[in-house]
Amino acid sequence: MCGIVGFTGRENALPILIKGLYSLEYRGYDSAGIAAFTKEGLRVVKTRGRIANLEEKIREVGCDMKCTCGIGHTRWATHGEPSDRNSHPHLGGKGKVAVVHNGIIENYKELRERLEAHGYEFKSETDTETVAHLVDYLHTGKQEDLAKTVLAAVQRLRGSYALGVVSMDNTQEIVAARRGNPLVIGIGEGENMIASDITAIISRTRKFIILDDNEVAIVRPDEVIVMNEFGDKVEKEVQTVNWDMSAAEKGGYQHFMLKEIMEQPKAVTDTVTPRIKNNAVCFEDNGLTDERLRDIENIHIIGCGSALHAGMVGKRVIEAMCRIRCSAEVASEFRYENPIIGKKDMCIVISQSGETADTLAAMRLAKQAGAFTIAIVNVVSSTIAREADGVLYTWAGPEIAVATTKAYSAQLAALYLISVKIARVRGLISIGDERALCAELQRLPECITEALKCQPDMQRIATLYANRPSVFFLGRGLDYAAALEASLKLKEISYIHSEAYAAGELKHGTISLIEDGTLVVALATQPALFEKTVSNIREVVARGASVVLVTTDDFTGDESVCQHIIRLPKCLYEFSASLSIIPMQLFAYYVAVERNCDVDKPRNLAKSVTVE
Amino acid sequence: MCGIVGFTGRENALPILIKGLYSLEYRGYDSAGIAAFTKEGLRVVKTRGRIANLEEKIREVGCDMKCTCGIGHTRWATHGEPSDRNSHPHLGGKGKVAVVHNGIIENYKELRERLEAHGYEFKSETDTETVAHLVDYLHTGKQEDLAKTVLAAVQRLRGSYALGVVSMDNTQEIVAARRGNPLVIGIGEGENMIASDITAIISRTRKFIILDDNEVAIVRPDEVIVMNEFGDKVEKEVQTVNWDMSAAEKGGYQHFMLKEIMEQPKAVTDTVTPRIKNNAVCFEDNGLTDERLRDIENIHIIGCGSALHAGMVGKRVIEAMCRIRCSAEVASEFRYENPIIGKKDMCIVISQSGETADTLAAMRLAKQAGAFTIAIVNVVSSTIAREADGVLYTWAGPEIAVATTKAYSAQLAALYLISVKIARVRGLISIGDERALCAELQRLPECITEALKCQPDMQRIATLYANRPSVFFLGRGLDYAAALEASLKLKEISYIHSEAYAAGELKHGTISLIEDGTLVVALATQPALFEKTVSNIREVVARGASVVLVTTDDFTGDESVCQHIIRLPKCLYEFSASLSIIPMQLFAYYVAVERNCDVDKPRNLAKSVTVE
Repeated sequence: MCGIVGFTGRENALPILIKGLYSLEYRGYDSAGIAAFTKEGLRVVKTRGRIANLEEKIREVGCDMKCTCGIGHTRWATHGEPSDRNSHPHLGGKGKVAVVHNGIIENYKELRERLEAHGYEFKSETDTETVAHLVDYLHTGKQEDLAKTVLAAVQRLRGSYALGVVSMDNTQEIVAARRGNPLVIGIGEGENMIASDITAIISRTRKFIILDDNEVAIVRPDEVIVMNEFGDKVEKEVQTVNWDMSAAEKGGYQHFMLKEIMEQPKAVTDTVTPRIKNNAVCFEDNGLTDERLRDIENIHIIGCGSALHAGMVGKRVIEAMCRIRCSAEVASEFRYENPIIGKKDMCIVISQSGETADTLAAMRLAKQAGAFTIAIVNVVSSTIAREADGVLYTWAGPEIAVATTKAYSAQLAALYLISVKIARVRGLISIGDERALCAELQRLPECITEALKCQPDMQRIATLYANRPSVFFLGRGLDYAAALEASLKLKEISYIHSEAYAAGELKHGTISLIEDGTLVVALATQPALFEKTVSNIREVVARGASVVLVTTDDFTGDESVCQHIIRLPKCLYEFSASLSIIPMQLFAYYVAVERNCDVDKPRNLAKSVTVE
Repeated sequence: MCGIVGFTGRENALPILIKGLYSLEYRGYDSAGIAAFTKEGLRVVKTRGRIANLEEKIREVGCDMKCTCGIGHTRWATHGEPSDRNSHPHLGGKGKVAVVHNGIIENYKELRERLEAHGYEFKSETDTETVAHLVDYLHTGKQEDLAKTVLAAVQRLRGSYALGVVSMDNTQEIVAARRGNPLVIGIGEGENMIASDITAIISRTRKFIILDDNEVAIVRPDEVIVMNEFGDKVEKEVQTVNWDMSAAEKGGYQHFMLKEIMEQPKAVTDTVTPRIKNNAVCFEDNGLTDERLRDIENIHIIGCGSALHAGMVGKRVIEAMCRIRCSAEVASEFRYENPIIGKKDMCIVISQSGETADTLAAMRLAKQAGAFTIAIVNVVSSTIAREADGVLYTWAGPEIAVATTKAYSAQLAALYLISVKIARVRGLISIGDERALCAELQRLPECITEALKCQPDMQRIATLYANRPSVFFLGRGLDYAAALEASLKLKEISYIHSEAYAAGELKHGTISLIEDGTLVVALATQPALFEKTVSNIREVVARGASVVLVTTDDFTGDESVCQHIIRLPKCLYEFSASLSIIPMQLFAYYVAVERNCDVDKPRNLAKSVTVE
């Protein structure tokens, strides 16, 4: 992950860089740093911890950091522990060059050995420092532009990068380069910026350029020059942001996560509404033509983390509704497994940020194999959105909490839309069926609103069980897919080791972990499986477990053995994962609050995973 | 699960029943009990805990349990906690009828309400007591045979059962019935037995009959009469056991599990050898004809627990070698998901016992849908073996430890055989390739023997980390599949909450659980993925994890960040899961020993899961 930012212009760069870093903090917050051209030359200040620590350290060192050009970095550690010396920026050579980097340099070990042989001394354990010294090594003694040197340097790198490089040779210039990690260039008046993400530039300008893979840019106050890998100048389209940044504020809630949980009815409404016209699912403008959808032989759904879990729900809904063989695949596994992809296969890739490195690579692989690719993405113009054959945007708006909630719910809605559409174009459902399904989809936000009323119950239950070392989530079918996401939510923000199991699978080993007082959360929203799941509940209760049952209004099974029962409003059974996840998100949230965890920014995690 | 046994003859039944129960203890050990016709009438002694507790209780109650006919039970709790009153046998009515049961009665709640309305008083929370009262209710006042009554009773049951029923009306007669759970009848001289498994009768006789679904048997000292569901007499084939029971003794090892770990080279040799002739895989007698294997469109591999994990390895090997789309499915999920099964699909079902209820049901479903079914099974003549279109036996011999080791390794070998065979008949590999692959398969036991030499290292490492509350296992591709099994081994016998992750997926949430001193075991046996896995190891090390790396002799990555490195002998990369699991089994074993766990009989678990 990591976030990078750079500014060159006429005003004091320091507050602009700091503000930019704050808006990139969602990409990692293990350490932060800046490099700037001050009166005393190229100065670096960096520290372990968050941006606030960096601000304090700048005050402490007391130096005059006034400058009009500089670069900054917020880190999610990959190589080397989070520490001051592993923080970015890294200096090359004798401090003439400074580098910030997002990505992973795979051949850093060989490069480091070679540079050490040339007398370079390494101060950190990072892969990035290799780049700084490499640029210095290639630059020293030559009269060429810094940009040309960076171009030569990146051709020696294996792996992925978004880079910002500055050199004492020109204290008003930043050189940027990208392969595999996002980088935008903000176009201002007499000033320009670079950043990992538009949020970091939006307070200065709404105009931007997206740097593409293998391009290198020279950024000066009055001009931006972009070159391709051959050093030829490239004309780039200047785009304009049209977001409302105020939507990203907490709006009275204690945490972004709770605010975003509460925004889920709107996220689903905004995702579904533009795609239903005349009581039918309408994909006209987004590449998902009826012809493409009619002839699909197999579907691969690809994602990481919660997006993968959304895909697991999607797999079950699509297989049930469309009778097409469908697999939900871990992106990092899929891309290296030489997967079997047919020319008539469809690949649905899911990513909130649209920049998830493994998901992007998996999509490129599928595309290359001839599959038709559809992206379900929340960030407009993100790399995945731009490269997919068709896009179905989720309109969840900016999601700030690292643990996703509303983007996940919007992803489910997008998958339902695809499922209904495919079923219809393949003639598996009638126009009347489609109308009924669309009505159910439009009613879903209401049902979610109703489900959110369990908030006080979940808060109370969370208080009772917040001290458990292990929690198990059980379910069958769609409930199993929802249980996976329920478990991940709890894990990532409360640090409790929880795990989801197909309810029938627990007894094949893992049930040995159940002892007196172990918390088991059972999801049972599918009437055909009520009895079976109740049998599995009895097995864990017989071994001392306390059970929270999440079920529907019409549950008819024996509930006497459960300590707590959460009843969800009635919706179409195929859409039930959209409701059962609601109490689970609230449960995770309140457990984390009870345990005094940093809910919106859990340790070790970053919002957007742009490394493998 | 549960195990049932019954004896009727001329000798004292008590020691025979107790001995039978001991050999069935692998099916569950939550409680045990017997019912026998003594001088004082039908007497029941039962208790929570193991068979040894039952023996003690029989001594304590001091009653004269001498008898020539009786039934016994060892329980794995499903309905109601493990307790004295929930133990079997259960008495019906006023104590005239006694019942032992293996299975689950799904409609027990309605039946219980109806019987209570007729004045029956329930003493337990079990589903089984319903059967006892139902038999009593249907039997009372009628002059008909007990068998006829049982036939009428089972027609009112929903769910699965193997039943042993006795009544005061005939103190030399046992009535047995079966649907979905195994039951054999041992045929002796002037005595006969019933049992869940042949091991319980083998000390008295080697002749047996297998009772089929919906049949009811009358078992008397001098005759056995089997009826079908219409009450018509059925002729049954008498079969003969040809095992060597001495193979099931510990042979000097402290636990069966360690003995079975050490027997893995032999288990693999015995599985592979009969299937390689003239340097080619030979399936002639087992239904797996070249024609059937040539035209496969998709493969579904189905299993539970470790058998499922073997299937996950198999999926990867088959997809890589045969380029056929292959899925590994949780049996309990597959059977209820209305899976998409084509007429040209093949279904590989994996079960050590050949009696796993969910796996059996999934196989029947696939068969009904027209798929060709192959069973990989360790117990000859088990239900799955009998019903599959083709069988590939694993020759691991009796496995007594509840946590499987040698049966899993033999399952992997069987999957490799299938994979090589399919690749050959589909023309994807040459005769020369097949010869080379067969040679690698035959060399595998040697490699496993070599890998077993890590035993002292694993014992030492286990001692260091035995106190960790959470452990994570990481791997990519085949290593991920092996990591799943490695984690399950540790879980089931040490009760440590461990979890396996695709190495690239951890950072999408779960990495928030990594803190100073968390143990991470990384598997990296595939050179193409070394670098990627090392990147993931660095991510967890950066957050304080201690890392044990399991890799191959030719590992070239950066190992400096790992605390411990286990190097495996070189084998074909496709077969590497057979080696990487070896140190993991030993690790789990020694951790459990260090924690003073009951290694061979972990709490809550049973060897063979014959309920859903």
